[in-house]
Amino acid sequence: MRVIGKRLKRPDSRPKLTGHETYTADIRYAGTLHGGLVLSTQARARIRGIDTSAACAEPGVVAVVTAANLPEWTRADEVADRACFFLAHQRVAYVGQPIAVVLAEDAATAERAADLVTVDYDPLPVVAHPLAALEPDAPTVRDGVPNVNGTVEYHRGDVEAAFASAAVVVEREFRAAGVHQGYLEPRAVIAVGDPTGRLTIFTPTQGQFMIRSAVARALRLNEADVVIRPSTVGGGFGAKYTLLEPLAGWLALHFGRPISLVLTRRQDFAGTTPAPEALLRVGIAADDEGTFTGLRADLTYDTGYFSHSPYLLAGLMAGSTYRVANLAIVSREVSTNRAGAGAYRAPGLPQLAFALETLVDEVAQALGISAVELRRRNVAVGGDPMADGAIWPPFDARLLLDAVESHPLWNAPLGPDEGCGVALGMMRGATESASASARLNPDGTLSVIVGSIDLTGTTGGLTQIAAEVFGVSPERISVLTAPTDSAPHSGVTGGSKIIYTVGNAVVQAAGDARQQVLAIAAEALEVGSDDLDIDDEHVFVRGAPDRMLTLREVYARSVAIGSRHAPVFGHGNVANPQKGPTSAVHLARVKVDRETGVVRVTGYVAVQDVGRAINPAEIDGQIHGAVAQGIGWGLNEGMLYDDDGQLLTATFMDYPLLHGQDVPQIETLIVENPAPRGPFGARGVGEVPIIPPAAALANAIYAATGVRLQAMPMTAERVWRAIAQRDQHPALPPDGGDRG
Amino acid sequence: MRVIGKRLKRPDSRPKLTGHETYTADIRYAGTLHGGLVLSTQARARIRGIDTSAACAEPGVVAVVTAANLPEWTRADEVADRACFFLAHQRVAYVGQPIAVVLAEDAATAERAADLVTVDYDPLPVVAHPLAALEPDAPTVRDGVPNVNGTVEYHRGDVEAAFASAAVVVEREFRAAGVHQGYLEPRAVIAVGDPTGRLTIFTPTQGQFMIRSAVARALRLNEADVVIRPSTVGGGFGAKYTLLEPLAGWLALHFGRPISLVLTRRQDFAGTTPAPEALLRVGIAADDEGTFTGLRADLTYDTGYFSHSPYLLAGLMAGSTYRVANLAIVSREVSTNRAGAGAYRAPGLPQLAFALETLVDEVAQALGISAVELRRRNVAVGGDPMADGAIWPPFDARLLLDAVESHPLWNAPLGPDEGCGVALGMMRGATESASASARLNPDGTLSVIVGSIDLTGTTGGLTQIAAEVFGVSPERISVLTAPTDSAPHSGVTGGSKIIYTVGNAVVQAAGDARQQVLAIAAEALEVGSDDLDIDDEHVFVRGAPDRMLTLREVYARSVAIGSRHAPVFGHGNVANPQKGPTSAVHLARVKVDRETGVVRVTGYVAVQDVGRAINPAEIDGQIHGAVAQGIGWGLNEGMLYDDDGQLLTATFMDYPLLHGQDVPQIETLIVENPAPRGPFGARGVGEVPIIPPAAALANAIYAATGVRLQAMPMTAERVWRAIAQRDQHPALPPDGGDRG
Repeated sequence: MRVIGKRLKRPDSRPKLTGHETYTADIRYAGTLHGGLVLSTQARARIRGIDTSAACAEPGVVAVVTAANLPEWTRADEVADRACFFLAHQRVAYVGQPIAVVLAEDAATAERAADLVTVDYDPLPVVAHPLAALEPDAPTVRDGVPNVNGTVEYHRGDVEAAFASAAVVVEREFRAAGVHQGYLEPRAVIAVGDPTGRLTIFTPTQGQFMIRSAVARALRLNEADVVIRPSTVGGGFGAKYTLLEPLAGWLALHFGRPISLVLTRRQDFAGTTPAPEALLRVGIAADDEGTFTGLRADLTYDTGYFSHSPYLLAGLMAGSTYRVANLAIVSREVSTNRAGAGAYRAPGLPQLAFALETLVDEVAQALGISAVELRRRNVAVGGDPMADGAIWPPFDARLLLDAVESHPLWNAPLGPDEGCGVALGMMRGATESASASARLNPDGTLSVIVGSIDLTGTTGGLTQIAAEVFGVSPERISVLTAPTDSAPHSGVTGGSKIIYTVGNAVVQAAGDARQQVLAIAAEALEVGSDDLDIDDEHVFVRGAPDRMLTLREVYARSVAIGSRHAPVFGHGNVANPQKGPTSAVHLARVKVDRETGVVRVTGYVAVQDVGRAINPAEIDGQIHGAVAQGIGWGLNEGMLYDDDGQLLTATFMDYPLLHGQDVPQIETLIVENPAPRGPFGARGVGEVPIIPPAAALANAIYAATGVRLQAMPMTAERVWRAIAQRDQHPALPPDGGDRG
Repeated sequence: MRVIGKRLKRPDSRPKLTGHETYTADIRYAGTLHGGLVLSTQARARIRGIDTSAACAEPGVVAVVTAANLPEWTRADEVADRACFFLAHQRVAYVGQPIAVVLAEDAATAERAADLVTVDYDPLPVVAHPLAALEPDAPTVRDGVPNVNGTVEYHRGDVEAAFASAAVVVEREFRAAGVHQGYLEPRAVIAVGDPTGRLTIFTPTQGQFMIRSAVARALRLNEADVVIRPSTVGGGFGAKYTLLEPLAGWLALHFGRPISLVLTRRQDFAGTTPAPEALLRVGIAADDEGTFTGLRADLTYDTGYFSHSPYLLAGLMAGSTYRVANLAIVSREVSTNRAGAGAYRAPGLPQLAFALETLVDEVAQALGISAVELRRRNVAVGGDPMADGAIWPPFDARLLLDAVESHPLWNAPLGPDEGCGVALGMMRGATESASASARLNPDGTLSVIVGSIDLTGTTGGLTQIAAEVFGVSPERISVLTAPTDSAPHSGVTGGSKIIYTVGNAVVQAAGDARQQVLAIAAEALEVGSDDLDIDDEHVFVRGAPDRMLTLREVYARSVAIGSRHAPVFGHGNVANPQKGPTSAVHLARVKVDRETGVVRVTGYVAVQDVGRAINPAEIDGQIHGAVAQGIGWGLNEGMLYDDDGQLLTATFMDYPLLHGQDVPQIETLIVENPAPRGPFGARGVGEVPIIPPAAALANAIYAATGVRLQAMPMTAERVWRAIAQRDQHPALPPDGGDRG
């Protein structure tokens, strides 16, 4: 391997680190109208009236648009598909729901005038929490739709009997707060119409083809009349799918001017698509050898007003992570008067792991088996059945457990109030068909054209793959994401699948381009293709490197008046129905201040099977980021709502993302157990490392303190309170505000 | 054939006819600096100084840039490559040469302030006409380069002996004025840099990859750092290649703001790339059977200050149009102090045909052989040698002569002062390698992605080709030209070769997509691919049309999580070294007013071999346009310069394009003699019909009046003068101002 496995810098580092990157809000079209959104301040209400007169009177305001100004077909009262929701019509269903948009000549005027719009609400009873949604007499959040919006169940064997006859049973309830993806770039969109009805949309999306379909469906346009120009994503983490694009598109076509909609931070917190709150009751039964004999789980995910919670994946993984003969899994999503749930890196699984991995730890403790050894005995590996009966494709997390076990941190002596915890994360892996092209340029470089969005550095990974296959250094490859009108197909950047899917298309396209280059050179040099090789700028005869042609010359021979050779234009078009499962085992060491409950992470090791490390530096970065988010989620973050459905944590002052100084030194251990169908054996990388951190911290906190936390985030207050409760502390105050 | 051969509307008609098309000058970026060019008013001079103070003082002016502000490497005194010429440094070489550019916040200020820049010239002797350039003591236009800048010669047999022993010899000198392409959209460019040094250029170019290479070379950038976004061409006709793009690009990168440069009409006339003046001495020798036994030609094309005249093609075609055993051809280009020559539809050949076809007519008259019959006996056909020894690929203009001969207009009785003339035009045809992609969309439509510029309606032609091959109606195909960063390769839109080259790539890409669709449907429907066919929206089993899958369903099966099928993404990549020659024979009937010399066209028939008519309506349009231009060129148009090199015809008041009412009814006769390697047999269409009109008019004028014109344009004054001279008119004034 000449390029695969090298630690290379990301091609996008420079513009991002120097502040030169152009984000959507930086794109300015002459004549743009800036939109200021008026969002609902009520979680559930009828709208008696909207007074736009003061806003309209503001100099620089061109229009104030409410649902009354939109076409009839946008005004459905109940819209399951978020993409088809424009502006609230007659009633609102969550705080942060768009009611009106002020269009002005500049953004400051639009924002100021939006504050002048007054809405007369007639408040209705609010379903503010997922538990409340389950009450028999709860109001229904969406008319005619039960609050339990979806349920999945998996059953295997006789779980009651297994629990009844087990040597050890642990069962417990857990709660996990909703969390926001915490991207630095708030949602933004620019829409530009042309008078023929075609629409161009600039948006920092994770999936341009998905957005195109959504916008076309919402606006009743032909897909060919919508062009998505994906702009740089300033942090996505699963959140950045369809939101404001249809509204911006309609405004652009209606007003005949470019439209810019950029959320403020507060609006972004209130009205977007956070990861949902979850309520998880999980139990494990084991025999005295530590073999898991039964597992039951009852999972409830809040989905807010729109239906997009991760309950299906969570239900599946609850019953698939460990090999258990007897299963009973129920997983559901419930509607509440909150903004609709969205995806966030390994959707639903950090919450699930928090519950499941805590219980595994308890079983280990009860049986006196090492936490690593117990997992090794029970963890599902390739060939085992999943909850739905599908068979796990090849993978083996036992390799990671072995690595953890032999790591010095696992065996190192502990200081006072210090503990060490381990947790395991696992994802099924996603796969999808994909295409790519590869074109030789006049300067002998190769352009690789794809349709995938670079969310996590995939451009660099695809560059290395193309360089390895084509036979040149990465500097001579440029990977470009074309817009929807011309890009080869790619699925959304989600499910850790871009390298696993588009990577294979790039292998094929670059390989095809290489063969075309070799054929042209073979004719010119009068040798067989097999006798040729490529270095950075040349095609040469193996063993006689001065018999060569530059890649520039190959281009010139292929692209010319009367050329007998076709242009070098490689083609990659792949299907790969076999998934490449991903797994990670993390080891966390913490020191707990018993006086304050503050948890300090004193050591962290993340072990992950990446199949093949295309760029280990990039993978380290992905793992570091995921662990930082996972620790934030585990210790700090939570979207808190009051009983009226008001979000209490709508700024970065109230919503405590981890600061740089709070992130510990994170050691990564990359294990390469190739995925049979991945490019060079690569598996997905981005999501799985966010699954274990909270669980590993919980187990470490237990090891340090002897108390088990059952709610995320494990704030200092909660840790202190748990210790105080355990110790029957005389000063323990009542638990008043614990809404997380 | 379901689609090929159908008369369909052009997809771009609607936006163009309704005024909704966006041209380059309509693209407005926020923060744009508008450039006002200061052009030389002297044809040859040293620059003593440039006073920019008044312009700089104008409110709204941001900068005035001269060569002194440009980097050293842009300031070469003698630049053969127009792309590397930025602003005049120390001296000027033609009227209209850019000296400075004023950058202002709006276009009106830029233009006004440009008028305030004063240049102190020290005039030098001017080479104002191509004949003057050939004088032994003429100043050299470019230091160290002879005024005869290039020469090509072809010799075959013994031409002196052939002329000495011929039954008939005709030999004469002809002149043809330079002409401007007369596009309605003046040259315009928008350049947008980004702080990382990458450059995006919007330009109405005929060849985006050529412009990219030129800009990269001129600005010393990597090609990958230049993206050309080709905008709609508002008329090109061969003119729209590199001109202002490098300068605009440098300004955008230097000032960090978008730059817009839009020429005024007068600037466009003065400083762009017109078709050159030509001086042609041609002779034909024939035996008494009418067989051409000798041909000699001495051709001189003005190339102005830059080297891009069509002398090579003209020399080749002078000796290749007819089958002649003895040849002596010299063709040269000469430098003058005029703007550099450019291409204009069939470059150099209308001028050549004016000379050659007049002489053929004279031979026919001398021998008493019909003008059609004489051509039929001598015209070169597939298999004959060209002047350079290459062999003509299959084609046969005799089919066209047969068609003319049997046309009623050829045999119809003539009124008084009416005459009928015929002329033949021929082009070698160009070819080049090309690529294309074809992608199935969610709505079951097919996107065809190419890199070629639509100058003449090729988008419609490629749409029909893709529709025919894929098996759907043209409404379900969209053809898109992607920008340079992602487009499949195409050569420039010149040489009538887009359908002939990119058309083949589209045949392959659409055919590949069709096979992929059939394979997916075959598996779903459990039949063989061969048993399936496609109609507009379905794939169905032949003979059992209710066993079917919609194309939407095929898409859904190919693009999905876990899909076993790859996306439908067809690939076309072709080389076609065999050219597809094109030929046309035109028949013109004119009535001449002997009192005024005014020529009125009373009938016109254009016969053309198109190989295969993809869209006959489109071909009619191409022929109509070419004949209108050809008549304008033959009767009206001419760029006139005085002896100081000042252009006297720099507005559409002075440069008389044909008006609508001057264009006669044009009858087209399409002959389909398939080109073996053309898509469905198609040959190029756009250029050849501009070759015969002036010559056919000259022969018709002779038939009407008995005088032969030897200078183009054949203005009323010239016609009147020729008749007066022949008749020894007593009032004949001296010929004072005949500069054409």
